[in-house]
Amino acid sequence: MEDSKAPVSEHGGETSKADVLEVAASSGSRRAAANRGLAVLDLILRFVAVIATVGSAIAMGTTNQTLPFFTQFLRFKAQYSDLSTLTFFVVVNSIVAAYLVLSIPLSIVHIMASRAKYSRLVLVFFDAAMLALVTAAASAAAGIVYLAHKGNARANWFAICQQFDSFCGRISGSLIGSFAAMALLLLLILLSAAALARR
Amino acid sequence: MEDSKAPVSEHGGETSKADVLEVAASSGSRRAAANRGLAVLDLILRFVAVIATVGSAIAMGTTNQTLPFFTQFLRFKAQYSDLSTLTFFVVVNSIVAAYLVLSIPLSIVHIMASRAKYSRLVLVFFDAAMLALVTAAASAAAGIVYLAHKGNARANWFAICQQFDSFCGRISGSLIGSFAAMALLLLLILLSAAALARR
Repeated sequence: MEDSKAPVSEHGGETSKADVLEVAASSGSRRAAANRGLAVLDLILRFVAVIATVGSAIAMGTTNQTLPFFTQFLRFKAQYSDLSTLTFFVVVNSIVAAYLVLSIPLSIVHIMASRAKYSRLVLVFFDAAMLALVTAAASAAAGIVYLAHKGNARANWFAICQQFDSFCGRISGSLIGSFAAMALLLLLILLSAAALARR
Repeated sequence: MEDSKAPVSEHGGETSKADVLEVAASSGSRRAAANRGLAVLDLILRFVAVIATVGSAIAMGTTNQTLPFFTQFLRFKAQYSDLSTLTFFVVVNSIVAAYLVLSIPLSIVHIMASRAKYSRLVLVFFDAAMLALVTAAASAAAGIVYLAHKGNARANWFAICQQFDSFCGRISGSLIGSFAAMALLLLLILLSAAALARR
């Protein structure tokens, strides 16, 4: 930077000025290309996060298990809506997936308009809010899944996974997508902030 | 902008040039003052968030209740470490409080250096990570607290709050600080991103 600026202030010749402009233009276009790369990465991460959250919501939402034995009055059946935390999990994952789909057009705009400012700011805020939302759902569900696996002797809560083993396996697995979406949203926030800083 | 630029290119007089420079300088200093205001707000929010998380950790960590009746072998006593989710809550709130204390010097630097770029980027990333962490702890604990209050008939989990009422009141209350810290961290991310955008 020091070297390329020096000739203008000292000599001010036409050729050196042109050189400087050329250097500036090429560094500008390099910078724009890097920004475009970040924006494309942003778009790809959003697609992956949509798949992760939709997968989580579907895996959790379609879980149910009916035990092969039943009494005269009772049929032992487990499904996600028996536990309100798991219902919350399905709802939140659907909301976050919907938000991510809605944010994709804006992400595409950012590939073209690499100097956009306020739209990136809006994205950072909503990405952070969605990060909080999906984290809340995933960790509350993880807490309940842990309880279903281990139970708690002090509170007299039994490990229901001893009976409902396939149900438990499924609800444990469906957490993965949500935690992946968490990591992706964290990356998306960093990417947007980096794009704001590089403008 | 159009109006203030026009005189220079057309007339190039000394006075109008000086005017323009003056206008630019005053708009620059106004902008710097606004940035300083944002940085001071950032510092204040960090202090409040420290108090909120420390309060949460202490309120949860010091909770215990011993029931007035006991058998020959058993004394009925409830404390936060009986439930691993509540232990997680205490640990995470302590970690986030420690991070926020460590981030305060950087926040003070930003009051002076309003054009700092990479340090703000680092703050955005770690703020987002801490937002995820404190949200995870708060919502997992909220899930367990809900279960302690309501129980779950399908899983045969009883509402322990019927016996341990003061314990339950305390653990419910200690969630407030954590949720407040969540909102504050969300605001802090927005402030840092806005500062990056305004540079």
